Parts: sequence; C-alpha cells; structure tokens
Amino acid sequence: MRMAFSVLDMTPEDADAFARAIVDAKAKIHLCPICQNLTDREVCAVCDDLTRDKRVICVVSDAKTVMAMEKVKEYRGTYHVLHGVLSPLNGITPDKLKIKELLARVNEGDVKEIIVATNANVEGETTAMYLARLLKPLDIKVTRLAYGISVGTDIEFADEVTLYRALQGRRDV
Amino acid sequence: MRMAFSVLDMTPEDADAFARAIVDAKAKIHLCPICQNLTDREVCAVCDDLTRDKRVICVVSDAKTVMAMEKVKEYRGTYHVLHGVLSPLNGITPDKLKIKELLARVNEGDVKEIIVATNANVEGETTAMYLARLLKPLDIKVTRLAYGISVGTDIEFADEVTLYRALQGRRDV
Repeated sequence: MRMAFSVLDMTPEDADAFARAIVDAKAKIHLCPICQNLTDREVCAVCDDLTRDKRVICVVSDAKTVMAMEKVKEYRGTYHVLHGVLSPLNGITPDKLKIKELLARVNEGDVKEIIVATNANVEGETTAMYLARLLKPLDIKVTRLAYGISVGTDIEFADEVTLYRALQGRRDV
Repeated sequence: MRMAFSVLDMTPEDADAFARAIVDAKAKIHLCPICQNLTDREVCAVCDDLTRDKRVICVVSDAKTVMAMEKVKEYRGTYHVLHGVLSPLNGITPDKLKIKELLARVNEGDVKEIIVATNANVEGETTAMYLARLLKPLDIKVTRLAYGISVGTDIEFADEVTLYRALQGRRDV
C-alpha cells in the first residue's frame, strides 16, 4: 500500500523512470560468477578489487549480509553468497545452495580461511557445521563470527543463551 | 503515578503490608561481607553455597547483573559486586568502588580466574582494563565476556561495531 501511494504521488516522468528501473533491475542484475553476490557488472566490485584479500572468504546466506559486513570497513577479504542456509525440514539441502561454487573456489585458489557468517540460529549453525566438516579435510581454517553481548547492550537485558555464549567465549583481557 | 494508583487499589491490609515491606527492605537488606551483593542473610546465598566454585569470581557492576548471570544456570562460580563502574569524569574513581574488597578476597583465597562482566561501553571497558592491570601481577587470569552477535539476531541488523567485534573474536568451528 505504501508503494502504491508513493507511485500515485510521483510525476508521470518519475513513475515512468521507476517502472523502467524495475524492468532494468530484473534484466541487468545477475550473480557474480565468483562469489554469487548480486551485481550489474561482469564480476562484482569486491571480487574485482585487487586490494581485497582473496585468501579469506566470508560465507554469508544472502546479499543483505554482504552489505552489513561491508559497513565494517575493516574487513578486507572476499565473500561467498550461499543464497540460503541449510534447512532439511524445509527442503533446503546442500545442493540447493551455492556450495559447489564455494568448493570450486577453494579447490582452485589458495584459500586460507573461511569465515562463516550465518545467523546465530539453528539453520545458521547447521550450515556452519556442515561447511566446517566439508572444508576441514582440505586443510582450510574454518571460523565463525563470535557470539556474545552486542556493543552498547546492558548485560542486565541480555537473554540467557547469549549470556551463556558470552561466558563460554570469554577472552583474556 | 502507577505505584500511587496501585496503592489506591489495595485493601487497607495490603497497603499496610506493603508499607511494612518497604521499611523492612531498607532495614534488613545489607551487603554480603564477601561478595558485596545485596542480601538479607548474614552471608549471601551464593557465597554460602558449598557447591559453587570459589576460585572463579565474576565481577559485575551491580546486583541486577548478578540476577541476569544467575539465569545462566551453567555458571557455578561466585560474584563480586563493584557497585558501579569506573568513570573518572563523573567522579567515580577506584576508591568509590568495592575494589579493595575484591583485592582482599584475591589475597586471602586461591582465586584462579576473574571474569569481568561489565557492560560493553567505555566505562565497562575501562573498569575491565583497570582490573586486569591490577590483578595480572598477582598471577590471576582475567577474562572478559565475549562481544559478538546476540543469539537469534539477524547479522543484517547488527550494528557495525558489534559486527567488527564478532569478526575480531571469530573462533574455529
């Protein structure tokens, strides 16, 4: 409804441009052949960037997570978008995800570390475990984002599971 | 206002009991001589519990954090309540906190690890650093709760600083 009303508020030219943008988006946006992220270029901007460390791959479930990770300016590795997470109950088995493509990248380049950045829930966890079991025999370091207290959060209001994870993952000061 | 109206809704007996409870609370609740937590017993329930590991002390800023930590059933150590965090700008210097009392505990018992569970903000961090510098020469392991993604949170919606910490603190799967 909000979209409909904002269209009605547009000038005819803007509505026209908007309609064309929608058609273009579907026509021009495709998957990067390397990392499977969405792009309108032949190879996406991250894979094409010579300053990015190609030996580190951050595995994410979708393109939105890539955007979130890119806000963390400190990350200088590349990505691999799985387009989903494992969820056998919903019929999402490994062959439905871009795991083959990840294995191909690992087999051809000298990948040093795979950082699994899937969500902190059952499916995300299962996906991380699956990848770890798949990649460890290839002598690749598989890591997972840390669980714990969000910066700025009051411990008082943290849920038990998070607090438990934060306790388990405590580190030397 | 909500308190006032709920008092008006009470029966005279309940209002009486409520008033007495308030007076009692101030009269009976005092600090546990060991961990400085609030208690109505001579020594608080945690310090008095023989099954708790006295060699591990979780340092918190206030009694509310003890309650949050106690919900994590897996924690079997003891606590130490500082009653605040370091904040020199607001006049909260080390002597205003229960740090002397913590040092006394460390000096007399065989404490193995101090887990600093202060909030993930500047004051909490400063307090953790201060304690680490104070306790490390005494050959005590000082750790800090892990920072990272809360369990159940979408990475997409995590703030940059948290994501950065989660990336820095990544662990092997």
